[in-house]
Amino acid sequence: MVYVTRIEHFNAAHKLWNHKWSVEKNKEVFGKCANENFHGHNYELHVTVKGTTHPDTGFVMNAKELGDIIKEQVIEKVDHCNLNMDVPFMEGRFTSAENFAIGIWNELAETITKSGSTLHCVKLIETKSIYVEYFGE
Amino acid sequence: MVYVTRIEHFNAAHKLWNHKWSVEKNKEVFGKCANENFHGHNYELHVTVKGTTHPDTGFVMNAKELGDIIKEQVIEKVDHCNLNMDVPFMEGRFTSAENFAIGIWNELAETITKSGSTLHCVKLIETKSIYVEYFGE
Amino acid sequence: MVYVTRIEHFNAAHKLWNHKWSVEKNKEVFGKCANENFHGHNYELHVTVKGTTHPDTGFVMNAKELGDIIKEQVIEKVDHCNLNMDVPFMEGRFTSAENFAIGIWNELAETITKSGSTLHCVKLIETKSIYVEYFGE
Amino acid sequence: MVYVTRIEHFNAAHKLWNHKWSVEKNKEVFGKCANENFHGHNYELHVTVKGTTHPDTGFVMNAKELGDIIKEQVIEKVDHCNLNMDVPFMEGRFTSAENFAIGIWNELAETITKSGSTLHCVKLIETKSIYVEYFGE
Amino acid sequence: MVYVTRIEHFNAAHKLWNHKWSVEKNKEVFGKCANENFHGHNYELHVTVKGTTHPDTGFVMNAKELGDIIKEQVIEKVDHCNLNMDVPFMEGRFTSAENFAIGIWNELAETITKSGSTLHCVKLIETKSIYVEYFGE
Amino acid sequence: MVYVTRIEHFNAAHKLWNHKWSVEKNKEVFGKCANENFHGHNYELHVTVKGTTHPDTGFVMNAKELGDIIKEQVIEKVDHCNLNMDVPFMEGRFTSAENFAIGIWNELAETITKSGSTLHCVKLIETKSIYVEYFGE
Repeated sequence: MVYVTRIEHFNAAHKLWNHKWSVEKNKEVFGKCANENFHGHNYELHVTVKGTTHPDTGFVMNAKELGDIIKEQVIEKVDHCNLNMDVPFMEGRFTSAENFAIGIWNELAETITKSGSTLHCVKLIETKSIYVEYFGE
Repeated sequence: MVYVTRIEHFNAAHKLWNHKWSVEKNKEVFGKCANENFHGHNYELHVTVKGTTHPDTGFVMNAKELGDIIKEQVIEKVDHCNLNMDVPFMEGRFTSAENFAIGIWNELAETITKSGSTLHCVKLIETKSIYVEYFGE
Repeated sequence: MVYVTRIEHFNAAHKLWNHKWSVEKNKEVFGKCANENFHGHNYELHVTVKGTTHPDTGFVMNAKELGDIIKEQVIEKVDHCNLNMDVPFMEGRFTSAENFAIGIWNELAETITKSGSTLHCVKLIETKSIYVEYFGE
Repeated sequence: MVYVTRIEHFNAAHKLWNHKWSVEKNKEVFGKCANENFHGHNYELHVTVKGTTHPDTGFVMNAKELGDIIKEQVIEKVDHCNLNMDVPFMEGRFTSAENFAIGIWNELAETITKSGSTLHCVKLIETKSIYVEYFGE
Repeated sequence: MVYVTRIEHFNAAHKLWNHKWSVEKNKEVFGKCANENFHGHNYELHVTVKGTTHPDTGFVMNAKELGDIIKEQVIEKVDHCNLNMDVPFMEGRFTSAENFAIGIWNELAETITKSGSTLHCVKLIETKSIYVEYFGE
Repeated sequence: MVYVTRIEHFNAAHKLWNHKWSVEKNKEVFGKCANENFHGHNYELHVTVKGTTHPDTGFVMNAKELGDIIKEQVIEKVDHCNLNMDVPFMEGRFTSAENFAIGIWNELAETITKSGSTLHCVKLIETKSIYVEYFGE
């Protein structure tokens, strides 16, 4: 069993906001992240798959194929977007890094399984100070 | 003459948009950066001052004082903001990295001069692929 | 279960020294790290907590709250300090990165549990070449 | 149980090539990595050992000793080499990052066990976009 | 006048070798870099242009256009190549980082001038320890 | 003219302290940096030389030779040392990053001139937030 990680980057705007709460309550809980006109990040995404190496290639999974899946399933849906307004798979969900990593896992898992490998971890680096990891359960 | 650089970070949303142009023309020139609902970045800001060292401290400028000036003059006005909507010193200006660096220079120069040092360079890193530098002329 | 990591930085002096040993034995085992007048590091600290996401916020734990706990329980006690002389929780312990990570875990675990989350890992990066990780057992 | 990681760097040339396949098939599967005249990388190697701390030193393993083992068992055999032509432990194996990490594990495990510690993970960063991890099984 | 830098990455193999010298003399002067079977690097390339900002865009130069020029004029000619065997613009030249940066400048300068901007600097990072800069004279 | 930069790392302890001032005045001006028992840093040192390329090597200066000069003239005198107590070339000087960069320049300039190249810049990165540059005048 070897673990292979591919790193991709994208930029997006978002805000943290609970529609059931008042403006004051949102500012109190989410601080500057609740600015109504949004802020944004350069997100760094690490997608890790695991498996055994193929005897013909020495690969667990062709890194180019993994990159193509991430671009098609995730990057094209989120890059230069507003996570609160433009991204179907985040509709109705808070755009916390935690929820976003879970959403990204859900977009990737089935396609990676079909390709013959297994998704192991989605790691999402939001800023130089915060990152989250999700292992599917 | 020694050059001292202080690095600060902030997050912001923006879009590249020319109000005199059609939507199509904006998309053609600015590509994904013209998404109407904004995108965003983790900006890294390097502010360089120059001068001679003080005989009592060995400092060109106390780094804490330089940090306080950057926070007061720049970070508090832009962090977790929308550069197109929330930042007075960018009003009426395209929010390209170039213009933003010039805007930041203008916010900093006078206060740094008053502190007895000289502003030398504003370097603004927008993504892992693009940064701009402005030397005041 | 999602894992959330907050990164903080601090600077400290220390030396590796076993008081039961001669100067020669200390130099032999610890090399340059046994310089009697100390050396120092820019430490980078990664604190990882785990838990489920709150339905009201999408957070496992508010990153600001986690940052405040780290600052109060660790950074204020070690930043710009001498680990061999100034830090109560390292008193009587070798200031190896391993021991220091265990010491930091002990300062953090209870407060993080009280906050409703669970401490998962303390990762301490001492130099560009060495880091240690402690998972509490 | 504490985990200690030492990071080392080396440079090497390689190509991805299956001798049983035609040139066309190699280009189709491996893309630019199948350039017959080789390409190369600055590899970053993280070697993680685990164990309990020694009462006399506070170390799981002396980082200098770990560095010496990595240099002797790995770096001297691969640095500034061609992985397809110059490295005995990769002979007859595809030089994918996956296989290379397994090969490095095999060079290290016994010597680290003899030193009284336990090898936990070999992480090999091939480019800014790809890294692999191997835990020995 | 604002300076805009675009960063690109590529991988290549090379060796340092003077055909007029004996093997021994090559090994003596170039050390491990004279391994006859080549070694390689992940090169990081910073291309800086300078100019005034356009009143319609706020750009000195569209970063996408600059990226396209670098990809067409440099990356496609060197990525996953052997600098000593595969790169026409390095033919007959030692593949030192210095010479390579000059060669890259020569590939870029005219096209960037035609685009209406001015090439200011080519910075080439060969390893974590060495980089070179060339300003065209 | 090409500029070549070599990067080296070292660790050191220091404190900012003006012996003519009271403890209170030192704490007021230097803040936490005036902790009497010292703190420390992982310093990153960039040494830039300039010159023309040699026709026999393509080098401005052999990077290994430059590395050896830096190690002999600087690293061996400061690594794992206390800048206020152990470093002859800093005796009687405040150990600010500015003064330290000037001191390093003075240790390097003559030897580099003798080697046939010219020292251009000493850049000293003290923390993730502060670096200084000195060009010799």
